[in-house]
Amino acid sequence: MKKILVANRGEIAIRVMRTAKKMGIKTVAVFSEADRNSPHIRFADEAVCIGPPPSNQSYLRGDKIIEVAKSLNVDGIHPGYGFLSENADFAEAVEKNGLTFIGPKSHAIRVMGSKLAAKEAVKKYQIPMVPGIDEAITDVDKAHEIAKEIGFPVLIKASAGGGGKGMRIVEREKDLASQMTRAISEATSAFGDGSVFIEKYVTSPRHIEIQVLADQHGNTLHFFERECSIQRRHQKVVEEAPSSILGPELRQEMGEAAIKVAQACDYIGAGTVEFLMDADHNYYFLEMNTRLQVEHPVSEIIAGVDLVELQIKVARGEALNIKQTDLKIHGHAMELRVYAEDPLNDFLPSVGTLERYRLPVGPGIRVDNGFEEGMDIPIYYDPMLSKLITYGQTREEAIELMIQAIANYEVKGVETTLAFGTFVMQHEAFRSGNFDTHFVKDHYAPEKLQEQRRAKARLAALIALNHYFQGQKTIRLPKN
Amino acid sequence: MKKILVANRGEIAIRVMRTAKKMGIKTVAVFSEADRNSPHIRFADEAVCIGPPPSNQSYLRGDKIIEVAKSLNVDGIHPGYGFLSENADFAEAVEKNGLTFIGPKSHAIRVMGSKLAAKEAVKKYQIPMVPGIDEAITDVDKAHEIAKEIGFPVLIKASAGGGGKGMRIVEREKDLASQMTRAISEATSAFGDGSVFIEKYVTSPRHIEIQVLADQHGNTLHFFERECSIQRRHQKVVEEAPSSILGPELRQEMGEAAIKVAQACDYIGAGTVEFLMDADHNYYFLEMNTRLQVEHPVSEIIAGVDLVELQIKVARGEALNIKQTDLKIHGHAMELRVYAEDPLNDFLPSVGTLERYRLPVGPGIRVDNGFEEGMDIPIYYDPMLSKLITYGQTREEAIELMIQAIANYEVKGVETTLAFGTFVMQHEAFRSGNFDTHFVKDHYAPEKLQEQRRAKARLAALIALNHYFQGQKTIRLPKN
Repeated sequence: MKKILVANRGEIAIRVMRTAKKMGIKTVAVFSEADRNSPHIRFADEAVCIGPPPSNQSYLRGDKIIEVAKSLNVDGIHPGYGFLSENADFAEAVEKNGLTFIGPKSHAIRVMGSKLAAKEAVKKYQIPMVPGIDEAITDVDKAHEIAKEIGFPVLIKASAGGGGKGMRIVEREKDLASQMTRAISEATSAFGDGSVFIEKYVTSPRHIEIQVLADQHGNTLHFFERECSIQRRHQKVVEEAPSSILGPELRQEMGEAAIKVAQACDYIGAGTVEFLMDADHNYYFLEMNTRLQVEHPVSEIIAGVDLVELQIKVARGEALNIKQTDLKIHGHAMELRVYAEDPLNDFLPSVGTLERYRLPVGPGIRVDNGFEEGMDIPIYYDPMLSKLITYGQTREEAIELMIQAIANYEVKGVETTLAFGTFVMQHEAFRSGNFDTHFVKDHYAPEKLQEQRRAKARLAALIALNHYFQGQKTIRLPKN
Repeated sequence: MKKILVANRGEIAIRVMRTAKKMGIKTVAVFSEADRNSPHIRFADEAVCIGPPPSNQSYLRGDKIIEVAKSLNVDGIHPGYGFLSENADFAEAVEKNGLTFIGPKSHAIRVMGSKLAAKEAVKKYQIPMVPGIDEAITDVDKAHEIAKEIGFPVLIKASAGGGGKGMRIVEREKDLASQMTRAISEATSAFGDGSVFIEKYVTSPRHIEIQVLADQHGNTLHFFERECSIQRRHQKVVEEAPSSILGPELRQEMGEAAIKVAQACDYIGAGTVEFLMDADHNYYFLEMNTRLQVEHPVSEIIAGVDLVELQIKVARGEALNIKQTDLKIHGHAMELRVYAEDPLNDFLPSVGTLERYRLPVGPGIRVDNGFEEGMDIPIYYDPMLSKLITYGQTREEAIELMIQAIANYEVKGVETTLAFGTFVMQHEAFRSGNFDTHFVKDHYAPEKLQEQRRAKARLAALIALNHYFQGQKTIRLPKN
């Protein structure tokens, strides 16, 4: 593989190209007209504009991307995450055009892309699953029957869903009919498919996922777990590895379960098997994401591997030269997704210009970044600015470094999730490891951040004052 | 230890404070009037101005620093490197004032601070040393006698020296008298002590040093070697760990030798034992640096430790909870010292304002930085802007990442060693591992960088041109 095209934008495009360059592979970037000044363009050896925003006219135009790839003699296409990364038709088209898709085969994407097909595929492997039905339904009477059997609370979930759309928790029988109707209509409009599952609703759930990677020679490895329970709007915002609640035995058991899930669909490449864990540490298979995840760096750090490098190697047919028993966990890694979102306003996107944008550096800090000072944040895309990752020998160390790194991350012009990150890192529930996916609902309120903001403004005023009194020899900065 | 004062400036002050904060320890910065806007001030919890530049009126004023420490209820003083870090009187004064010196005891500093005393101390441990005399001399006749005995070429070295001052290589007997006279006068004016050693001059030498650390309970560990052969003006500029020429046996042997050197002076804390290695892989003890070294990050990365944390822990009396056999080398790390120096003009300091200053970020990159965009580079101090460190699973990976990171490190307003770093990384001798401390003399010439600079200017012009033709859909960037 001499040249790869990265069919993505922002931090993940740069991150993939970094590894390609390191491996001596040339890189091609594609970009939309809205991204003309994006750093991922300058990072590439060649860059081609593939159309205007929104995505369905550019980053989702698989046909154009394949055309560009062929015209520039590209050997392989890396899809990143989002966009075309889990589009089985695209993966198939790439291969049909004689190019390598750096990801799983279309068959595996299709199976795992449907919750039903995924459940069916892993059935014979005794992977624990949340009690519920095997087939998606649209019938309200049947729903009643099932819900009574598995017991309330139950969860109604769209078969084709994701990102919380079409999901309803039903606590009492009398609400079932109305919630079912709403879930079906939401799923129909979002995914064009109104069928839903009904399953036991797990209270106090934690989201724990296992990173897997398989080569074309029958070897499948897992790279331990990531804890992704800190979410806002059903989307992850803080991730870490390892999880503070997994012991070695449970880790091994879940790792082996994840490998079985991957094998169930003849998986090749990097993927993630997501589990829900209840308060008693029972785990249940949720789904498999057939791509590189946003939060993959925390696994890279604790396992000491470059997952993109391994993706490229297995895509070009190399056999993995690592054994499961060679893999050990080193230290602890923490990731904060730095979104241009306003944590005082329900985490709504905060568009604008990055008037000031300075990243923290130093030992134990990694920033996977996609933006630059002076850039506008396009309204068309996910508003993630960067991923701020810290690591140390212990969880406490990674947390303290994260607090420090956030304090040294300067953004002016838009609101971000940085202050929310500090809130999480300083919260007793998070620090003690005693939290679940309801963390934001249970512990967070915008007022809590406003206090922090006032303290920060006070600090800035004090510093300014000190600079004013330059004659004064001692500057004492209050802690932030 | 609840509060420490860092008696230093720039990147090392920040680097030490990072670890202190991580450990929950408060920090005090000191600064000279020339450093009033330096980021190390804002990084600290408290900061005190200790006088005007140059250093002998501020950073070298141990009395003032101790006074500040006492008035702010500081428990420990970390000296960083340079300045007071190897001043035995300061270490002693700190302890006499009831504070902890985060470094070795004054006795060890004194012994290792004198080449003669150091040789004497390690004598009984059978540490290989360069053939030469045990006592410093000033007598030219005696020098003739000795030089004939050990054979030419010989090296004349100031007893109190460092940094190449007072050093002379004598290839032929007829030059000995004149070179000896010059070395004595140079040493007298630089160090106030004209006595010199004469020893065998090792041709094709490599500079290899071992990081050691000892606690107060009799445990001394080594953290493998650093290869520091790439030097300009007798000063290191590129360092890496591990060395590409050491096998496991030689590594263990040199590690054990370094531990013996440390034990010979009852060493406590972090220190570095420097060796010279000849073309046949014979190694010779050079000296011990009784402080944290500039290049310590490469060892931290491959050994997976935080050396400053360990320094603080052993200073407060904790026993090391790691065994030598627990330590393993993970991957490869490379460091480039980014100096504001002009590699086209004999690496002379390039003063000015940092009109633009953007650091590279991303996986496998660590920057230990002391500067900010808009800052002036003070003329009073060592002009090191930062240390750019890259790491990967192999040496090749670290090298490729370094080339990438340099390309993403933006500096305008001053010349730097960045381009020289690229030159080194791309040079066949460096890549193959076949180099010695004469690398710059043997392979480097300013013209070689000028070519690179022209290519870079061409690239910038092409990008500008492409931005001009915004209507054009394809932007092809030539590789740099």
